[in-house]
Order: sequence, then structure tokens, then C-alpha cells
Amino acid sequence: MSILSPSTTIGVFDSGFGGLTVLGTLLERLPWTQFVFLGDSARLPYGSKSRRTIARYAVESAQFLVNKQGAEFLVIACNTASALALDAIQAAVPVPVVGVIEPGAAAAHDASRTGDVLVIATAATVESHAYAAACRALGLRAYEKACPLLVPLVEEGWTNHPVTEQVIRIYLDELLVEAAALGLHPDTLVLGCTHYPLLRPLFERAVPAGMRIVDSSKATAEAVARLFSQPESEMPLPAEPLRCFATDSVDKFQRLGSRFLNRPVGHVELVDLGG
Amino acid sequence: MSILSPSTTIGVFDSGFGGLTVLGTLLERLPWTQFVFLGDSARLPYGSKSRRTIARYAVESAQFLVNKQGAEFLVIACNTASALALDAIQAAVPVPVVGVIEPGAAAAHDASRTGDVLVIATAATVESHAYAAACRALGLRAYEKACPLLVPLVEEGWTNHPVTEQVIRIYLDELLVEAAALGLHPDTLVLGCTHYPLLRPLFERAVPAGMRIVDSSKATAEAVARLFSQPESEMPLPAEPLRCFATDSVDKFQRLGSRFLNRPVGHVELVDLGG
Repeated sequence: MSILSPSTTIGVFDSGFGGLTVLGTLLERLPWTQFVFLGDSARLPYGSKSRRTIARYAVESAQFLVNKQGAEFLVIACNTASALALDAIQAAVPVPVVGVIEPGAAAAHDASRTGDVLVIATAATVESHAYAAACRALGLRAYEKACPLLVPLVEEGWTNHPVTEQVIRIYLDELLVEAAALGLHPDTLVLGCTHYPLLRPLFERAVPAGMRIVDSSKATAEAVARLFSQPESEMPLPAEPLRCFATDSVDKFQRLGSRFLNRPVGHVELVDLGG
Repeated sequence: MSILSPSTTIGVFDSGFGGLTVLGTLLERLPWTQFVFLGDSARLPYGSKSRRTIARYAVESAQFLVNKQGAEFLVIACNTASALALDAIQAAVPVPVVGVIEPGAAAAHDASRTGDVLVIATAATVESHAYAAACRALGLRAYEKACPLLVPLVEEGWTNHPVTEQVIRIYLDELLVEAAALGLHPDTLVLGCTHYPLLRPLFERAVPAGMRIVDSSKATAEAVARLFSQPESEMPLPAEPLRCFATDSVDKFQRLGSRFLNRPVGHVELVDLGG
């Protein structure tokens, strides 16, 4: 099913830089497409804040991408904003809006044989139980846990550091004990935060043998790419495939962002959302 | 020198909860005084943001305490806001404003014999070099280092955890090697963030023998307390010595706040600064 033309402008939004892991895959898969990315870095992280505050920030950001930058399709490349504000964003802008939760849950459904899955995410995402609900709708049982130290460890650049490996093992041990106490037999771990793909090699070493790892960033980018038709004839690639905006320090965005995007971010424009 | 009467209303401001470590000492030392505390928790942490953004947030917060809550004296109980926005706050409100940097530097001056000190703080505080400047004005040489993992570790409640001890040792080792390479002989470590006093026992175990630890939170509270006169006659204690406001989740404020204040926070009112 391809419902969108290759020339549609796609807006991608995150509270910070993590969403660039989603954007990286989209850029590879949809080279004809024009992308606009906004990182609301002045107000990050969303993961420790309340639903009301997160919804207000996310709606302002979505309106900027649609009303000011002409986005015709919106990807909420932030688990926290997807979990707590997808309805509010969909009500606030007149374009299709896709979050990362449903594609993540669908990928977990494809991966799991026991039907029991583990989800790790920020505190706000976990408290919303958005993953548990999306998994339940697909017949899965999900056990969710907040891992608030992982985002700071990634941002410190400790993506291959013994301390990070130790923290991951502590969180995973707690997760497995707690899930077992509930009678679950999990065989799949969902990385429910766009920062976590940078820790994937450490997770692969730490999970029990046979456990599959699902990356909701990659799952979302793949799901979005499938919505777009291939160009019918040869199509010129856009001269400037990506415009980036941030609400705080452009320098930091360029420095950290290239790590998530896996290529240089290029020019980033500072934008004031009045927050 | 006591310049202020015991009935002065003191406003205390932080980006989050850390400033409650300053407030705790003030409440003990000035029991006749009325306090108003604001935690700008919807926009925390300030420590990873730019000067422009921090100044805007801090000025709005200061104006709320003075114009809306009647504060006649302001304590900026946040190292990042003190380092980057003290001038902007002083220009924006018509009351005396004290930050934590100068009192911290003065306490380091009292503690150090070699005249060389180490300062640990958030990235924004370090990049501002506010501590280095305040130390230099007192004839000290200071070497500063950002320790961005310590705030998340405190907020995760890992204040007495082997991982935190390991992270502290890694940061301290780097700090000592870097300072030695510059020819410094540091004998004093300044805790330049209001979260760090909760890690003081770990720092005491980790520093080289003979190194003194200076807590800028405590130094600031002591300096402010000295500005206030004792009441001349018996004075009734205020019925409600502390009113607390937060810009985000009141529940989280009460839960985390009591850990920093070392007593229950009591009622917290949600306030919208429009950010």
C-alpha cells in the first residue's frame, strides 16, 4: 500500500537528537524526499516530564513543522512524545501523523514466539503504558521498565564503555526478575527510546541467549517508507534533502547529531518556539 | 554585617530540585523568615543548554518570585543559572540577588593552602568559566570539569551505588591527570552543582588523602544567613515558613524534593511560566 507520492515533504520531530536515528533510515530509504527535522533541544528531555507539559511542547513543535515549514506528513521520532501526545498532535495539525509506538509494537509482534515482550524506555513513556496498550491490541503481553540513565550515558558518548555495560546488565537483571515474577516468558526486548539503538551492541551482549532485540526507530522508519510510492520514472534527487532546526545550541546539535544520524548534520537553524 | 531584617521574604530559585539543598540550610539558619521556592522543572535541566536559553528561563523564574510572590531578596540556588544568568537576573528584578558561584569560590579560598582548586559542575557551568573567574579574582587557580552523569545518577536515587562510585572515580582521575598536566597542585574540590552534596560521602572516599571538599550550596546558605540580623526580641515563627512552586509535575517534586530538603516538602503549587 503506497498512499503518498515521493515528492511529499516529511517533517520529523524529536525532543532532541535521538530522532535522527529514525531520520537516518528514512533518508536512505526515501532519497527523493524532502525532509524537515526539528529538535526541541531547549526543552529536552521530555522523558522525565508530565503529560500536560510534553503535549504542549510537542504540539508547538508539530505546528512549526507543518504551518511554518510545509511538512505534509509528520513522523514523531520520539517515544515519549508518541506515547503521551500523539492524539494531541493529530488533533492540532491537518496532516497524517505517525508515532514510534505502534510500529515498535508491530515489530515485537513479528519477532516474538512466546507472545511476551519486554519494553525499556524513559520514565514518562513507561508511566503512560502506551507500549503495553499497543502490544495488548496485538495479543502480546508486555512488561515495561524505565531506564533513565541510558540517555545521559549515550549523550556522554559512553556508548561502548564498561560502566554503560554494567548499567545495562543491572537494568536487564531487574527487568527479567520482575517479568518472571509476573509469570511472563519474554523472548523479545523492545528498545523504546530513539537513543537506545546506539547501545545495541551492548544489549546484544547482555540479553539472554535467543532473546530478540526490536528497535522501534528502525521499525518506524521501515513502516513509513512502505507508505510511500516509488517514483514512476527517473526523478531528480532534491538539492537539499534535509533542513534541520533546533530550539537550542546549534553547535551541540551538529556535534551530537552526526553521531545519531551517522553522517554530518550540515547546517542547523535556530528557532524560537517561545518556550 | 547584617543588612536585612528577619521578616524579609526570601525567594529561592532552581531549575529543579537541587536548590533545595541550599534551602534546607537556610530554613535551619533563618527560622523567622518566610521562604518562597520555585523549581522550573518543566524546563530542566539547564546544565546542557545555551546561555541565551538559560537566561530567558531564569529571568522569567526570578520575575515570578519577585513580582508575583513578593520575594524581597533572591537566592539563585542553581550553579548553571548563577554562572550564566546572574547579570541578566539582577538587571530584571529590583531586589538583591545572590548566586552560588562567589560564595563557593570564597569557601574554596578559605579551604585551599596551595591556591589551586578543582571545580566539578554541569557542562554549561564549566563552559561559562564563571568559577574560574571568581576564583581568579581571589588569587586562586581553578581547573574545571563537566560531570554530566552525576545529576542523572542522583535523580535515579543511586547516591550510594557502586556504579556511581565508579563514575566519580573516573571523573576524578581524569580531573587530577588534566590538572597535573597544567602544573597545578590542587588540594580542594568544589562541588559546583546543587545535586552533588548528596554524593558527598562517595566523594570523601574517592578524593586523594588531604584533599578538602567545598560545597557551594552550603557556602551560599551560610553567606546569605550572615546577611540577616537576628530578631531583637522574641519573634513568632511564621505559620507557613515555606511556599513551593514548580513548573512541572508536583508529584515528582514532592517525591524527589524531600530527598534534597531532608524533610517533607509539603504542598507544592503548579505554576505556568508559559514555556
